[in-house]
Amino acid sequence: MKYKVIVRVVLKPSVLDPQGAAIERALTAMGNKGIDSVRVGKIIEIVLEGPDEKTVFDKVNIWSDELLANPNMETYSLIVEPIA
Amino acid sequence: MKYKVIVRVVLKPSVLDPQGAAIERALTAMGNKGIDSVRVGKIIEIVLEGPDEKTVFDKVNIWSDELLANPNMETYSLIVEPIA
Repeated sequence: MKYKVIVRVVLKPSVLDPQGAAIERALTAMGNKGIDSVRVGKIIEIVLEGPDEKTVFDKVNIWSDELLANPNMETYSLIVEPIA
Repeated sequence: MKYKVIVRVVLKPSVLDPQGAAIERALTAMGNKGIDSVRVGKIIEIVLEGPDEKTVFDKVNIWSDELLANPNMETYSLIVEPIA
């Protein structure tokens, strides 16, 4: 069975996000109002083989800890979806 | 009313993704098998004021076209959720 796992990695709220601040400033400079905040993160889409959703989730959870996210500055969340 | 809009920007499938390839290689080097593909994209979370979901969606859709995504190499999708 194949699964697609989406790992969403975002900076912790306490960490300054200069890229997000730059986008916010650009949008405001374009004449837009009412923007409260802009934060930028990354998304990693992994397609892999696995026996079931739980096993796949646990495996990618370990990868996120060990490789994909920086636990000092970032948090992450996972979505696992089976591929037909 | 406040809304949170999540803009997910990913490279078109035809565009080479060296960052994704590097992660795939690293995971394989860590002894993992059965990985089909890894693609890396970015996520932009915008919190803003707006009258209703449709207006907010249309507005951020224009921003994505004009500023957030590179239409030559990337595609994007939007999720709008009201904030209580």
